[in-house]
Amino acid sequence: MAQQAGGAKPLRVVIIGAGFAGLEAARAMARAPCEITLVDRHNHHLFQPLLYQVATAALSPGDIAWPIRTIFRRQRNLTVVLAEVTGIDTAARVVRAGEDLAIPYDALVLATGATHSYFGHDEWAPVAPGLKTIEDATDIRRRLLLAFERAEVTADAEERRRLLTFVVIGGGPTGVELAGAMVELARHAMPQEFRRIDPAAARVVLVEAGPRLLPSFPEELSATARASLERMGVQVLTGTRVTGCSATAVECGPERIAAGTIVWAAGVVASPAGAWIGAERDRAGRIRVGPDLTVPGQPGIFAVGDLAAVTDARGRAIPGTAPAAKQMGRHVGRILAARAAGAPEPGPFAYRHHGDLATIGRRSAVVALDGIRLTGLIGWWFWGIAHIWYLIGFRSRVVVSFEWLWSYLTFQRGARLITGREPQGGNAARVPGQTELVRPREEAGAVPPARRSA
Amino acid sequence: MAQQAGGAKPLRVVIIGAGFAGLEAARAMARAPCEITLVDRHNHHLFQPLLYQVATAALSPGDIAWPIRTIFRRQRNLTVVLAEVTGIDTAARVVRAGEDLAIPYDALVLATGATHSYFGHDEWAPVAPGLKTIEDATDIRRRLLLAFERAEVTADAEERRRLLTFVVIGGGPTGVELAGAMVELARHAMPQEFRRIDPAAARVVLVEAGPRLLPSFPEELSATARASLERMGVQVLTGTRVTGCSATAVECGPERIAAGTIVWAAGVVASPAGAWIGAERDRAGRIRVGPDLTVPGQPGIFAVGDLAAVTDARGRAIPGTAPAAKQMGRHVGRILAARAAGAPEPGPFAYRHHGDLATIGRRSAVVALDGIRLTGLIGWWFWGIAHIWYLIGFRSRVVVSFEWLWSYLTFQRGARLITGREPQGGNAARVPGQTELVRPREEAGAVPPARRSA
Repeated sequence: MAQQAGGAKPLRVVIIGAGFAGLEAARAMARAPCEITLVDRHNHHLFQPLLYQVATAALSPGDIAWPIRTIFRRQRNLTVVLAEVTGIDTAARVVRAGEDLAIPYDALVLATGATHSYFGHDEWAPVAPGLKTIEDATDIRRRLLLAFERAEVTADAEERRRLLTFVVIGGGPTGVELAGAMVELARHAMPQEFRRIDPAAARVVLVEAGPRLLPSFPEELSATARASLERMGVQVLTGTRVTGCSATAVECGPERIAAGTIVWAAGVVASPAGAWIGAERDRAGRIRVGPDLTVPGQPGIFAVGDLAAVTDARGRAIPGTAPAAKQMGRHVGRILAARAAGAPEPGPFAYRHHGDLATIGRRSAVVALDGIRLTGLIGWWFWGIAHIWYLIGFRSRVVVSFEWLWSYLTFQRGARLITGREPQGGNAARVPGQTELVRPREEAGAVPPARRSA
Repeated sequence: MAQQAGGAKPLRVVIIGAGFAGLEAARAMARAPCEITLVDRHNHHLFQPLLYQVATAALSPGDIAWPIRTIFRRQRNLTVVLAEVTGIDTAARVVRAGEDLAIPYDALVLATGATHSYFGHDEWAPVAPGLKTIEDATDIRRRLLLAFERAEVTADAEERRRLLTFVVIGGGPTGVELAGAMVELARHAMPQEFRRIDPAAARVVLVEAGPRLLPSFPEELSATARASLERMGVQVLTGTRVTGCSATAVECGPERIAAGTIVWAAGVVASPAGAWIGAERDRAGRIRVGPDLTVPGQPGIFAVGDLAAVTDARGRAIPGTAPAAKQMGRHVGRILAARAAGAPEPGPFAYRHHGDLATIGRRSAVVALDGIRLTGLIGWWFWGIAHIWYLIGFRSRVVVSFEWLWSYLTFQRGARLITGREPQGGNAARVPGQTELVRPREEAGAVPPARRSA
């Protein structure tokens, strides 16, 4: 790329993926003599750390997603392309996208992230959806809310108990936050509103194969998280491996949990970008990159974020978190900005770990910063302020702050909509036998349906 | 129903449909000895007058829809059932819904509303979607935003011109509001954000078969509306009948308008509830009801809202508007509340027409009240305040007010998300020929693509 040095001709940079890593890379080149093309298959950047709140009806999709074009409207050296990348011709240095787009590049930044992995059981996907996109979130929201609706009209106590059982598979931050938000939805937002069932009797089960929740966190925080979840009413099963998922149940070896809604928050696997360029990958499909985040043997091609397998100075794997992705993206952006300007390029990438956060529910979160440990209410406040801070734009900060204040004061959820078509392979089994809708006063009552038939 | 009189046994009332009419009927019975079952196939009540703002990315679905259960959580004599009604057994007095629900009633209120009618051309539905549900709105939003995205990457000037042409069919309030909002999206929210196309060059065409826009409004307001729309850049074609719709064009007799997005805002037809009970219907499928809004020959069955064909004292048809629906619902609710309590029932229904409102765009609306006519900025303020006022709940009022203030100050849209799967029969034709994505600086420029190829 010598001919670009000195900026005689702008450096053509293509970034694939507008997640945290891709966004930071593009921003770091804002003032550089680059010609950036940012390709993504969605028109929006998604603030994934709060996606579980869309899935549990606390926030609307629009609160945590922003059009990529709006984010970069003032960065004139950047063009946004909404298209699905179909392949990369590394010899010709061209990215192929959409039906017939060919986007030439001098430098390529792969930031396509990861998706959920069913460990070779992709047949579980339709009955145990994961949470990565807005469509995933509204699909899970639909399943959650429909389960309560169906439980309200079914006459079969067995079926009602099944519909009111929610299983979250995977005890990482997403699984912990989902389980906490689900039990709060059932305990706080739903009661008063049903006449035949007691939503508070809903059963939320969090299944983790490993020995403890939040494996990447310090041990005592795992214990705190488990204790808070159990206090809230979540049933936590650690050291429990899922051996089967069907439309009506989760199997953990001999044990079978009849469930109306199953959410997959277990494994992740990197996007196929590694295969596009035939790079060496680890078991999770992540590209093994060099210290400067380049793909070995592929000059000018970088991999960042969840797609990259990187170890820090002490040889520890860098976690697949938003802060890590941002740091990698910024580092590559600075390298390319320097290269475009013919300036000296920064050295190898050094990851700075600022801490781990996870919220468990109303007034409860666990926070591990460099020196500090925060839990309970203080941790919760810290978590909330940090997330508001990282949202993009004044508008979202105001709306999300208001939504949170609102649900905190009223216990209500602002986005409890069942939208979209019935999912294929949905978990709703037929209600057996004819159901005469009985009168509220007769059936309603303190006895939760889960126990009524006993 | 004599046995109910005196309230010895509560009056079992089933309301089908949780639109404006159904909601008001249920509320009017809040304190009556009734046992109300409210059946709807959606879990939310939708504020349809603002649905066009969701379709044009100004508001999020959650801003204008509320769970029916939340609305009625304190009305203990009401049970909400989420189910699709499949039929009514008037002999047995049972409503059949869902897969096997049977809901007995003493009195039945049909409030199932209307949907769009393609005047016998249902094959137009996939290419010219109408706007009645949240799914319709997000589908139209997806088509609108995708059209700009596709125009940005296509190399074919002809195709680009087609993609940037938006046709709204039907010049009633919905069509007028949609066309105005679309041209503002293109002129104000989009520019700066694209590098190759000039979104402001988008062409919005409003086609009306009749001689004037807003046919139900006073004539001079139709003229004002047309003038404002044209000033904003909407091409208004009155006296123009659509003879064909395809994935790529609208045909009006000899004339053919190549279009990337088509929206149907023309005719409406009542829901099939009339057929369920074999009632006499008018051409639009609406049930011809008596002065007390009962179905002739069907004691205890009422039809209200867009489903009912009613004429006022002066023999004029009552419009299919939210205020009319609310008045009918309230009237029937009062009749049944009185009947349940064994009190004297109110007389025949009398419609009070308060006026007509339609917003045209930023700082422009037309308002016809009993005596007064408001247009322009004052009309716009009146329109905005009236709509905020009628939204349900403090939360929505705050959020919608903020979203409106925000877009007014920044010209931006808060909900510009492309979500969901690609619609079947979408209007996106393949981009012919291989496209080399050229550099921003080379192609961008003042010349709008619509004229570039000329």
